[in-house]
Amino acid sequence: MTTQMIILNGGSSAGKSGIVRCLQAVLPDPWLAFGCDAFVDAMPARMRASDEGIVFAADGRVSVGAEFRALEAAWTEGIVAMARAGAKVIIDDVFLGGAASQQRWQKALGAVPVLWVGVRCESEVAAGREIARGDRVQGMAASQADVVHRGVLYDLEVDTTHTESLVCARTIAARVS
Amino acid sequence: MTTQMIILNGGSSAGKSGIVRCLQAVLPDPWLAFGCDAFVDAMPARMRASDEGIVFAADGRVSVGAEFRALEAAWTEGIVAMARAGAKVIIDDVFLGGAASQQRWQKALGAVPVLWVGVRCESEVAAGREIARGDRVQGMAASQADVVHRGVLYDLEVDTTHTESLVCARTIAARVS
Amino acid sequence: MTTQMIILNGGSSAGKSGIVRCLQAVLPDPWLAFGCDAFVDAMPARMRASDEGIVFAADGRVSVGAEFRALEAAWTEGIVAMARAGAKVIIDDVFLGGAASQQRWQKALGAVPVLWVGVRCESEVAAGREIARGDRVQGMAASQADVVHRGVLYDLEVDTTHTESLVCARTIAARVS
Amino acid sequence: MTTQMIILNGGSSAGKSGIVRCLQAVLPDPWLAFGCDAFVDAMPARMRASDEGIVFAADGRVSVGAEFRALEAAWTEGIVAMARAGAKVIIDDVFLGGAASQQRWQKALGAVPVLWVGVRCESEVAAGREIARGDRVQGMAASQADVVHRGVLYDLEVDTTHTESLVCARTIAARVS
Repeated sequence: MTTQMIILNGGSSAGKSGIVRCLQAVLPDPWLAFGCDAFVDAMPARMRASDEGIVFAADGRVSVGAEFRALEAAWTEGIVAMARAGAKVIIDDVFLGGAASQQRWQKALGAVPVLWVGVRCESEVAAGREIARGDRVQGMAASQADVVHRGVLYDLEVDTTHTESLVCARTIAARVS
Repeated sequence: MTTQMIILNGGSSAGKSGIVRCLQAVLPDPWLAFGCDAFVDAMPARMRASDEGIVFAADGRVSVGAEFRALEAAWTEGIVAMARAGAKVIIDDVFLGGAASQQRWQKALGAVPVLWVGVRCESEVAAGREIARGDRVQGMAASQADVVHRGVLYDLEVDTTHTESLVCARTIAARVS
Repeated sequence: MTTQMIILNGGSSAGKSGIVRCLQAVLPDPWLAFGCDAFVDAMPARMRASDEGIVFAADGRVSVGAEFRALEAAWTEGIVAMARAGAKVIIDDVFLGGAASQQRWQKALGAVPVLWVGVRCESEVAAGREIARGDRVQGMAASQADVVHRGVLYDLEVDTTHTESLVCARTIAARVS
Repeated sequence: MTTQMIILNGGSSAGKSGIVRCLQAVLPDPWLAFGCDAFVDAMPARMRASDEGIVFAADGRVSVGAEFRALEAAWTEGIVAMARAGAKVIIDDVFLGGAASQQRWQKALGAVPVLWVGVRCESEVAAGREIARGDRVQGMAASQADVVHRGVLYDLEVDTTHTESLVCARTIAARVS
C-alpha cells in the first residue's frame, strides 16, 4: 500500500522542519509539506494572544482554547482531503495532547495509508538549539520534549540528538512504500 | 446562505495580503487564511526552479508545469474540504489562467457559498509597490495586473490604487453574509 | 557638497522601509541602508524584553533603557564612520525622543553632509497599515505618528498618506546632491 | 586587555549564526552582533544580482565585484568604530578571500582587542544542513568549507560537526577576557 502521508511528531526545536525539508529533497516524488506553524500563521492575529486561540506563556508553556481546536479539526480534515485527492503530504505537528492528538488525526485519516514518525531529541540539547535559533520562547523545547510522545504509537522513531536531519530523513524515506 | 469562503484574486503586489489580514481583523468570526504563496512554500524547493514546478523568469513572468498543476488541484480540494468541515476560509490567489483558474475553484467548490472578490491596482502603481516591498522579481506586478482578471466574474471588486487595505476589507466584510 | 547620508525619521508604519528600498532603486550610486529595526535585531534577544533594553508594551508604547541607549550611541558613531569611510548611507529611524534624538545624530555627524527627511502619515491611515502588515503590536503607529516629529528640523518632508513610496523616493532623490 | 570584538569565520551552513545567538545569551554583557548576511541585505537589491555587487551562482559559488568591495571596506571601518565607541561586537563573516579577508579586518582593527574564532564543519555535514535549512543555494556549504580558512590565524577553533552551538559558544565565551 503506497504511503500517502508522513506525520512527524516531536517537541519544539526537536528538528522536525529540517527533516521535512530533507525528506522533500530525498523523496523522488514531490511531497507537499504542512506544519502546525503554518496553521497558526493562518489564524487571525488576535487568536495568537487569546485564551480561545493559542497562548505562548513566558515560561514556554503553550495552551490552546476551543476556537483553536475547532479550526484545527477542520484543518486536519482538509489536509487529509488533499491526500485523498492524490497529493503526497508530509505533516510536522506537536502533539500537545499526546495520544489524544494522534487519535484526532486517525479519525480524519480513515484508510489513508500513513507513516507515523516520532522525532525525539534529548531535552537539554533541544533547549540549547532553542537558544541557537533565537525565534522561540525559551522553555518550549524542554516543556514539550517528553509529553508530546506520551501514548503515541509510531512506525519508526528518529533521534536528532546525535543524528543529522538528512540522515534521519534517509531513514524515514527508506520506510516509505 | 452563510458565506463560507472568500476568494480574492489579483496580480502580484496588488495588495491582497494586506486586505486578508485586515479582513481577519474586522470579521467577527475567526477566518483561516491561505494563499498561493503558502502553497508554493509547501512544495519541495526543487520545484521552485523546475519546468515541472514553477519558474519565476527574470522579467517577472511566471510559468507553471504539470506537477504544479497536479498538486494545486489536490490543494484546492483540501482547502474546500476545510470549509466543508466548518472552517471559514479566506483565499488569496493569482489566477494566472484567468477564467480557467476560476473554473478550477468552482469545480472543487460545488455548493459551498463563496464570495468572489477582484483586487485591482493600476499597473504602474503596483509596479512601484513591487519595488518598495523589495522581495519580488521586478516585472511580476505589471505582467499580471490585467491578465489575471480576464473573464473572471466577481461579486465585488476593490481597487487599492487609491484605497487603503483596511477600507477595502470593510467593503468586503459588509458583503459577507 | 555631496550628500553622504540621508536620514529618514517617522513613526512606525509610516512607510519608511518602502521609501528606503525605492531610494536604493532610483539613486544611481549604491547606497547602504540601515534602520533601527536592524539595530534592535543586533541586540541580544534578552534585551528585547528588558527594562534595560527595549520594551514593546501591549498598547503599542515603546520604552528604552540605559543599556539600549549606550549601545545605540556606539551604533550611531559606527554608522557615521561608514559614511566618513566613503559609503553613502540611508538611515530610517524612529525619533522616540524627538529633537533630542536628532541631536544625538548631529553630535555624531559633525560635518558629514546629511539630508534630513521627515516621513509623515496621518495617524489613522498608519494605524490601518499596521493592521495590514500584521507583524507589529497594534497601537505603535498611532502612539508615534506625531511625537517623533516634535522639534525636529528637516530639509524636506514627505507624506505617504496619499503618495506612493516610489513617488516620495523620487522627491527625496531630487534633493540629493 | 578586555576583548572588544569576537570575529567568527566559517563557510556557509557551518553554524555561525546559531553560535552567535548562543554567545549573546551566555555572555554577561550585552554584545551587538552583525554578519555578512546583514551587510548584503543593506545593499541595493540590484547589487545582489550584479557582477559589480555579489553573484550567487547556481552551483553555490559566490563572487563579488568592485562596488561590493568598496562598500564592504567602509562597512568594516564602521563596525570597528562601533567597538571603539564602546560597544562589544560579535561578527560572523565568510572569508571568501581567506587570509586576505582577515588582513582587511586587521587593517581596520588597529589596536582593538579581538578574539579570532574559526568555525569549522565537515563539508558533507554542512552540505546536509544546507538542505535542511532550505534557504540557501545548494553547493555553497561544500564550496566554502575549506577555502575560507586558508591562511587564516585563529585564537581558537570550534567544530560544529559533532558539537552543539551552545557548547561551542561556551568554549568561546571562556576565552573572552
